[in-house]
Amino acid sequence: MSAVSATFFRSRWVKAPAGVDEVDPAELAPGFRAGAAACGLKPSGEMDVALLLCDADEVASALLLTRNAVAAAPVRVCREACDRAAIKAAVVNSGNANAATGEQGYRDAVAMRDAAARELHVDPLSVAIAETGVIGVPLPIGQVEGGVTGAAARLDGWGGRRFAEAIMTTDAAPKLCAVRCDGVTVSAQAKGAGMIEPGLATMLCFVQTDATVPEADAVLRAAVARSFERITVDGQMSTNDTVLLQATGASGRPLPDGLLDAVLLQLAIEVLADGEGATRVCRIEVTGAADDREAERVARAIANSPLVKAALHGHDPNWGRIVQAAGMALAGSDLYGLGRASVEAGDLAADSREADVALRLERGDGAARVYFSDLTAEYVRINSEYST
Amino acid sequence: MSAVSATFFRSRWVKAPAGVDEVDPAELAPGFRAGAAACGLKPSGEMDVALLLCDADEVASALLLTRNAVAAAPVRVCREACDRAAIKAAVVNSGNANAATGEQGYRDAVAMRDAAARELHVDPLSVAIAETGVIGVPLPIGQVEGGVTGAAARLDGWGGRRFAEAIMTTDAAPKLCAVRCDGVTVSAQAKGAGMIEPGLATMLCFVQTDATVPEADAVLRAAVARSFERITVDGQMSTNDTVLLQATGASGRPLPDGLLDAVLLQLAIEVLADGEGATRVCRIEVTGAADDREAERVARAIANSPLVKAALHGHDPNWGRIVQAAGMALAGSDLYGLGRASVEAGDLAADSREADVALRLERGDGAARVYFSDLTAEYVRINSEYST
Repeated sequence: MSAVSATFFRSRWVKAPAGVDEVDPAELAPGFRAGAAACGLKPSGEMDVALLLCDADEVASALLLTRNAVAAAPVRVCREACDRAAIKAAVVNSGNANAATGEQGYRDAVAMRDAAARELHVDPLSVAIAETGVIGVPLPIGQVEGGVTGAAARLDGWGGRRFAEAIMTTDAAPKLCAVRCDGVTVSAQAKGAGMIEPGLATMLCFVQTDATVPEADAVLRAAVARSFERITVDGQMSTNDTVLLQATGASGRPLPDGLLDAVLLQLAIEVLADGEGATRVCRIEVTGAADDREAERVARAIANSPLVKAALHGHDPNWGRIVQAAGMALAGSDLYGLGRASVEAGDLAADSREADVALRLERGDGAARVYFSDLTAEYVRINSEYST
Repeated sequence: MSAVSATFFRSRWVKAPAGVDEVDPAELAPGFRAGAAACGLKPSGEMDVALLLCDADEVASALLLTRNAVAAAPVRVCREACDRAAIKAAVVNSGNANAATGEQGYRDAVAMRDAAARELHVDPLSVAIAETGVIGVPLPIGQVEGGVTGAAARLDGWGGRRFAEAIMTTDAAPKLCAVRCDGVTVSAQAKGAGMIEPGLATMLCFVQTDATVPEADAVLRAAVARSFERITVDGQMSTNDTVLLQATGASGRPLPDGLLDAVLLQLAIEVLADGEGATRVCRIEVTGAADDREAERVARAIANSPLVKAALHGHDPNWGRIVQAAGMALAGSDLYGLGRASVEAGDLAADSREADVALRLERGDGAARVYFSDLTAEYVRINSEYST
């Protein structure tokens, strides 16, 4: 498994706060430990069960979950039987989403959570559970319980990389960071490559910090709204999306302005760049809409158009497809004035991994940005061959 | 150019009325003539300007147009300056959509329409105009006017095939038919392969008959609602979708029940089967929704999911992706009971060009069907290389 790039904040679209230092991403924020093990969910034998534990007595947390109506069993357990503001631990498997698995799936998720609570000596209601992988296959709970025991035996303050690796599915590389700024540390791990257009969060993301975060839920929602909720690989809201923020407050300092935004946006762009088959990513900025909500609707229509995504792949500055998608999003309105002068799409043709496209409407002051990956033959190959 | 299959009604989903006879599809319904010419819009030198003329003194017609807010110039001319209930003629070009071309585009469309009216000796307000091809490129109106003159010199009652060929863009084959039933004749021509999820109609379709059709607009809307409005190649509503029905009433007989439905549904399925890169088509039937509108929303989410479309391509009976897409369409609701027993997806794995998939919800009596094509590497190739 190769190291992440020396510079975590490598997207042109991410503004990290002044004075931020990147440290070894394997290192978790003070007060956190992680461990992982292989229990056989992944045929490859790679790690597929992971644990994350906060050793502090007090922890402020926030947990965002998918809005998909076919929410997976672990999401339902988190909704119904979890103290979302005081989560001490998380247990994760990769390889089985435990979605569309009915009442047995729910019981299995509870059993997995309880196994983690036992091993970690914490209240089951303080354990978040997340699962990711194939939909509709019963969870082999005995195997998973064995994996939980194995992961608990390997907890370590430098376990960030193992944790990030153990939560991967079709990801090409682990996505993680550890940064220090103004006396606080933030570490974070994410996974995701396909079935990505989050409704409230994306696939899986875990953030640990020793900062004081009094309004954890509001802080996390705001940062997620500007990052994971603004990306799309294939327009598909997952059944399992989960984002967890845990803050011990041990540093006695607040989160520096913009730090969580920068960490989550960079991780979200990592998810995009690792989108199934993706070779390029693009930011579409829509301005001049009637309001921000309309701008977002137009931007998402463009970001999800397979024609625009193919043009991004083909380095084709095809502005016609951008105005067509905008016209579809606002069907029934009149955008007859839209034309070549309304679009800046030249960057599509650039020899760059990141491209900027802008569309100016003339309906008001609404604006929105959405980030998306390209559509490639490799995406089709992956999703034609990935089997139930 | 190869002939269409000997049997036009070849989809398992189309029920042609009893007693229907298929005749040479080049033959237009009595009272109609068509012609075509090449004016150089297509670099290949193939035919790209087409005319259709009704010789009867009286004609009842209906014209359905895209709702895309960036509607092309010809669509706007048809909306603003056309007697949609009494259309005698149609003029079409393929190769240039004349969309997002501003006021000059509008003037060019009017000039093209007026050239056709002059050549055919009819009122300009009785001429429908349709254009299809690349978006955002000025129309070389002088060339097109020459093409109109050339097409007018070749009008023929057996011009259906030439007309169907001249309106093609990325289509692999012309799509046309001529059928007789209960003393009336219906001939029809369609084109379309990409940018297909019509909002009110699809790309281009022309229908001629000698039946009496007193409520032409309502009749056409109903048939289109069950055919072209129920297909999707790539979820993209075009800027130029147009469907024209013309009826002379010369036979003195009404349209046989189900004939127009069968003709339009088969043509719509031809468009799907010829979807860019498509190798298979699928019908998703959703039942048990709260109402028909909800069923349609769920069916479209499934039909437009690139994951489901890739599974169709890979012959993978991946029912998990079907419930995931349904859960996305109804985000915020609770579909926790959905599981393997709710889906019939085995046909995805069948060795057939047409596959049936069914999803049963348990929310009410709403039902809907949507037809879609698969997502292939060839789709990506076509749309990455098709250049502005």
